[in-house]
Amino acid sequence: MRAVVYEGPRRVSVKEVPDARVERPTDVLVRITSTNICGSDLHMYEGRTDFEPGRWFGHENMGQVVEVGAGVEKVRVGDYVVLPFNIACGFCKNCERGLTNYCLTAQPDPAMAGAAYGFADMGPYAGGQAELLRVPWGDFNCLRLGEDAEERQSDYVMLSDIFPTGYHATEMAGVQPGDQTVIYGAGPVGLMAALSATIRGAGKVMVVDRHPDRLRLAESLGAIAIDDSAVDPVEAVLEQTMGLGADNGCECVGYQAHEPDGREQAASTMNRLVASVRFTGRIGCVGVFVPQDPGASDELARQGKLAFDYGAFWFKGQTVGSGQAPVKRYNRRLRDLVAAGKATPSFLVSHELSLEQAPEAYEHFDARDDGWTKVVLHPTTAGA
Amino acid sequence: MRAVVYEGPRRVSVKEVPDARVERPTDVLVRITSTNICGSDLHMYEGRTDFEPGRWFGHENMGQVVEVGAGVEKVRVGDYVVLPFNIACGFCKNCERGLTNYCLTAQPDPAMAGAAYGFADMGPYAGGQAELLRVPWGDFNCLRLGEDAEERQSDYVMLSDIFPTGYHATEMAGVQPGDQTVIYGAGPVGLMAALSATIRGAGKVMVVDRHPDRLRLAESLGAIAIDDSAVDPVEAVLEQTMGLGADNGCECVGYQAHEPDGREQAASTMNRLVASVRFTGRIGCVGVFVPQDPGASDELARQGKLAFDYGAFWFKGQTVGSGQAPVKRYNRRLRDLVAAGKATPSFLVSHELSLEQAPEAYEHFDARDDGWTKVVLHPTTAGA
Amino acid sequence: MRAVVYEGPRRVSVKEVPDARVERPTDVLVRITSTNICGSDLHMYEGRTDFEPGRWFGHENMGQVVEVGAGVEKVRVGDYVVLPFNIACGFCKNCERGLTNYCLTAQPDPAMAGAAYGFADMGPYAGGQAELLRVPWGDFNCLRLGEDAEERQSDYVMLSDIFPTGYHATEMAGVQPGDQTVIYGAGPVGLMAALSATIRGAGKVMVVDRHPDRLRLAESLGAIAIDDSAVDPVEAVLEQTMGLGADNGCECVGYQAHEPDGREQAASTMNRLVASVRFTGRIGCVGVFVPQDPGASDELARQGKLAFDYGAFWFKGQTVGSGQAPVKRYNRRLRDLVAAGKATPSFLVSHELSLEQAPEAYEHFDARDDGWTKVVLHPTTAGA
Amino acid sequence: MRAVVYEGPRRVSVKEVPDARVERPTDVLVRITSTNICGSDLHMYEGRTDFEPGRWFGHENMGQVVEVGAGVEKVRVGDYVVLPFNIACGFCKNCERGLTNYCLTAQPDPAMAGAAYGFADMGPYAGGQAELLRVPWGDFNCLRLGEDAEERQSDYVMLSDIFPTGYHATEMAGVQPGDQTVIYGAGPVGLMAALSATIRGAGKVMVVDRHPDRLRLAESLGAIAIDDSAVDPVEAVLEQTMGLGADNGCECVGYQAHEPDGREQAASTMNRLVASVRFTGRIGCVGVFVPQDPGASDELARQGKLAFDYGAFWFKGQTVGSGQAPVKRYNRRLRDLVAAGKATPSFLVSHELSLEQAPEAYEHFDARDDGWTKVVLHPTTAGA
Repeated sequence: MRAVVYEGPRRVSVKEVPDARVERPTDVLVRITSTNICGSDLHMYEGRTDFEPGRWFGHENMGQVVEVGAGVEKVRVGDYVVLPFNIACGFCKNCERGLTNYCLTAQPDPAMAGAAYGFADMGPYAGGQAELLRVPWGDFNCLRLGEDAEERQSDYVMLSDIFPTGYHATEMAGVQPGDQTVIYGAGPVGLMAALSATIRGAGKVMVVDRHPDRLRLAESLGAIAIDDSAVDPVEAVLEQTMGLGADNGCECVGYQAHEPDGREQAASTMNRLVASVRFTGRIGCVGVFVPQDPGASDELARQGKLAFDYGAFWFKGQTVGSGQAPVKRYNRRLRDLVAAGKATPSFLVSHELSLEQAPEAYEHFDARDDGWTKVVLHPTTAGA
Repeated sequence: MRAVVYEGPRRVSVKEVPDARVERPTDVLVRITSTNICGSDLHMYEGRTDFEPGRWFGHENMGQVVEVGAGVEKVRVGDYVVLPFNIACGFCKNCERGLTNYCLTAQPDPAMAGAAYGFADMGPYAGGQAELLRVPWGDFNCLRLGEDAEERQSDYVMLSDIFPTGYHATEMAGVQPGDQTVIYGAGPVGLMAALSATIRGAGKVMVVDRHPDRLRLAESLGAIAIDDSAVDPVEAVLEQTMGLGADNGCECVGYQAHEPDGREQAASTMNRLVASVRFTGRIGCVGVFVPQDPGASDELARQGKLAFDYGAFWFKGQTVGSGQAPVKRYNRRLRDLVAAGKATPSFLVSHELSLEQAPEAYEHFDARDDGWTKVVLHPTTAGA
Repeated sequence: MRAVVYEGPRRVSVKEVPDARVERPTDVLVRITSTNICGSDLHMYEGRTDFEPGRWFGHENMGQVVEVGAGVEKVRVGDYVVLPFNIACGFCKNCERGLTNYCLTAQPDPAMAGAAYGFADMGPYAGGQAELLRVPWGDFNCLRLGEDAEERQSDYVMLSDIFPTGYHATEMAGVQPGDQTVIYGAGPVGLMAALSATIRGAGKVMVVDRHPDRLRLAESLGAIAIDDSAVDPVEAVLEQTMGLGADNGCECVGYQAHEPDGREQAASTMNRLVASVRFTGRIGCVGVFVPQDPGASDELARQGKLAFDYGAFWFKGQTVGSGQAPVKRYNRRLRDLVAAGKATPSFLVSHELSLEQAPEAYEHFDARDDGWTKVVLHPTTAGA
Repeated sequence: MRAVVYEGPRRVSVKEVPDARVERPTDVLVRITSTNICGSDLHMYEGRTDFEPGRWFGHENMGQVVEVGAGVEKVRVGDYVVLPFNIACGFCKNCERGLTNYCLTAQPDPAMAGAAYGFADMGPYAGGQAELLRVPWGDFNCLRLGEDAEERQSDYVMLSDIFPTGYHATEMAGVQPGDQTVIYGAGPVGLMAALSATIRGAGKVMVVDRHPDRLRLAESLGAIAIDDSAVDPVEAVLEQTMGLGADNGCECVGYQAHEPDGREQAASTMNRLVASVRFTGRIGCVGVFVPQDPGASDELARQGKLAFDYGAFWFKGQTVGSGQAPVKRYNRRLRDLVAAGKATPSFLVSHELSLEQAPEAYEHFDARDDGWTKVVLHPTTAGA
């Protein structure tokens, strides 16, 4: 089969690799019809992780089932399914409580937790930027889609990661009807957080970023766009909230946060959130932070530490929740909203390309070229 | 009336001051029969805050009602009452949701929230280390006690702060029956957190400290004492939990954390908690941290920042809740446990003294003299 | 002042009565600018309760503050305020946990809980269908409105009862984004429940009733209208939900439920809900049921009992929550949604009348005359 | 293998039946070392259900794994495991939210939900009152035990049903530290509810029953025993709670409730709970109720209806949760409490017998013979 193989820093190529196949009785084999390029893929693409050359990326996947193992009972050949990026067994201490983001079985390192397709340090699993994908514990991990699956792929594929991830930020932040919510970051995840806050009935959603195309997309959702290259975002939020601060906030940027002048400043969004959110407010942080970052420019960052305004955080009695999203906790209800026409997450897709066009897409996306908001690759055609 | 007046760094004296009195129709006037010295009093006593000389401390108070304003309906003269250290109006946006720790009315500074008796930056309210105390919004702030109030004062007075504060740590940490819980700090609050975890049905409670008297008290509750001057506490916790880490953790130390060798290291307990608590675990932080600390030895601490292992925290998908406890959310149910004989928080009281002995008590307590675990002052005798 | 005085079954007249006034230091006096007639008023109007002739109705009230007691600190003369129908002290065991619907102080009967303005068995408080209203514990009970209060009265007055009551039904039912929710009853409360379910992100809202005007209003919210005079509503819901039943349901009818043929059948909506809602689903019941109903036609109903399908309920593992809404728990966030233009509850107002027109309005509303969906009375003009 | 085969009303015999075996790759085969007789077994034993002669009972099972299917990854041959009585797939809409009590896959009837071993209408699964048991979806359904499993079987086997079921009652009732909790029924489940309430920190636990041996066991837990053959239990509870009623309550009796004079009165415990629990209180109902009961003496009961005091229930704003317990939600944490020596549910075991003694045990248990509180059968010996 063909796959987008990682060759080394900033080099991928589309190549022939061994076919994915059913290896265990509980596996499901999926022909991938849509697979996204994610911001997390760029960390690996840029060589900032220990992702091994020769493997391939792709953790935002959907497609059609072509084979099932002998122990599979729910999923049938021919079903359209979307796969959570987290691979989870369904029966460990974490999975049984819904914490599929930290599965203890799928992750081979006993000191760690959590697994994903085509991801550094998240287990040996192949990615979905390929024609076929092996899905372990298929009955648990496959979310089946309805009759409109094929034609609405660019909506449904978002259930694999960014839509549930954005939603998870609002869940950890405790967004409720009438709330004033601030979101730092208007990349794909930040925009999904803004969409999620709206779905949950927020009274006012404020989105902080500096890319005009992203801010426009935020405004298209009815959010208030705050351009932090033009104004102090903390002051802008306070002004919008009678000086009290937002009821809750979402971090959708991560450790590669930059100042408008280009300096990387991992602590800046969290510290601004502490300042932007009211006393007793909650913060949900889904932007990626890492336990160590050997290539970072300052010593704290190298050790995975932030110079965090913990005193202010404590003084205000805030709460922060963190980490990767347990996609499976939300994907069913978000699917139902998509199916009912009440959510259209595809609004941020800028490019739909073939697998062969992936190398070019990585180049543009990595360069943050204007207009490259979100790329969906179509390795195969449904029913092909 | 007599009060323990602050004269300047490490100087208090017992003096005549103007009588507290009913000032507003919703006030209640209480004759103080028990009032504790708290670790927070020491911050002010040592001159590390801007607490004004001439004022007096005391935010852990109980006593007997001697007068009520014209707008008071529930509380009656003669009632024994215990007062939450937080002064709260009961009707602002925060109080109406139970966030009495961050009352917007009682705190005069509109950029802040929360108030307390005899406390730096927490409003102009007089303390209770005196013969009389004015209690604003008396019907809301007074918790009435039963017939055993007088004889069990050293239990009931703990409802004013440390028992609910320790309980709040376990609430934010989400301690549930069967959990393995680690508590950093075996001072009065940490011991109350250990008691609270036990009440909530924890399967294993581990308490980290280095003072032998405190560790003995922890063991008397059935907890496992970990002496961090003898062993690496993170390793000890991992060993107790099959290498997975505790289910949840409580921070009961605060920014004045010290290494065993005596260096102040504000970040150490939080970072150890991140390392001691399992993936997806929750941490409740009631140890005090401050937005700035001008007298601190390093630059980060001066700005109220911690070099926080945020990367590890995020990677493990943990949650941390913080801040002062909303005492009123818990004091009624904890009172009922005391009344039923199912909790005896007085077990940590080391000294019961008269108001006149307060200066000497401050000296010993500030010096962390062995055996000075918790001091209760009795400014007046009930019915006097 | 003028008030709509109850004279006996189906007789009210507008008369001069003694002015409402500040009686206690915590009272606020409000000049009523909008006050609704509620379905509950009709129970009293029809003489089915022991409401005393000479008193006056009115528990859905808003207006402008004209005087405050000496113990009032937040509310100011001139403020526009809307009042929860429940009168609550703010400091009893129930109020402090947000259960203002069951205040133990405002209700004089120690065997009961909860109080309201102008309501049978809910304390001695005068109603708001008058020029002036005394509001006990004014700082706790008044929700202040913004600058658009005067011109958007018919929206804001709904915060006094039916909007929070409908919302409470969806809260008890646990409506979450993507859910399929069924609501029995499309009267004012049922329509507000449908609006609330939509705000909370429900994927599909189904509303059961038989009055064409009400069903049209439900459809205007995007809900699916089910006419139970034309189809079996249980079957209609099962058909809409792939045979599984709705995720959750709301009872907005109460004990005066009628069959399409006109027979009163108190148990019918609850039993249909049990059949319409899926295994493990939750039901929120805000329709009024009474502990005894001396005028009822059958023996069970006279004793306040239902022939409830408890076996089916248990077998399906359902949960039902019940009772009057704690308006204060929701009115602030719903106010913010109205202010933000994200909710317009006035859509169901059919008539805006003067106080003098009240007797005529009662007649039409009691007769369920077509088009009399909701009546707002304006006893005074703002600033008059 | 040998099994306790149902022959018809009140007739069981121990016979040779075909060996249980691994049928699907996800199955686990367990040699049963302990299996309890449950009150639910008696419903079937008495012939009040459509349980087919020739099948065998046993849904409270533990034992040692003797074989695993090719798709099983966690469970190993030799592991001691305890099995939740509910058989659940782990991946349906209900299981993924933890509602394993209503699994949609294991139950073959699409109009129903939930499955169990050896149980009428709960699927075709064989029971565990036999030498061997086939466990479907073994990785999901087996809870592994530690090294003390063999010697503490009579504690651990309670994790299969009654301990989690009693705990579920307290969870639905929302029992929190300091609460006053009333439990109707001191059979095995009621006693486990009392134990659970104690673990959760209840301040006062009241247990209503009339059998002296059961009331004594309740008292041994520190609960207050209320003998409803001697006093009016509602009045007794009100007296214990200052006339306000218990904070929450548990129904652990079910539809076969009897008056002290012997009449079956299905509605009596629920109606007494409504009267015994305070305004706004929650009730958890785990006693079994059935959608129809053809053999009942009155018409309502035949239809599975109760003459429920719904008016009083609504008037008090109570909530009731119902149904079988999702054992898997609780069994891990309860196991940890047993392992830590903080819970000893075996205290109620009255008889430990061999499989061959089962017929005699059924006879005595069905006759409610004095002292036959709980029977554990040991079909095989560990390691045999």
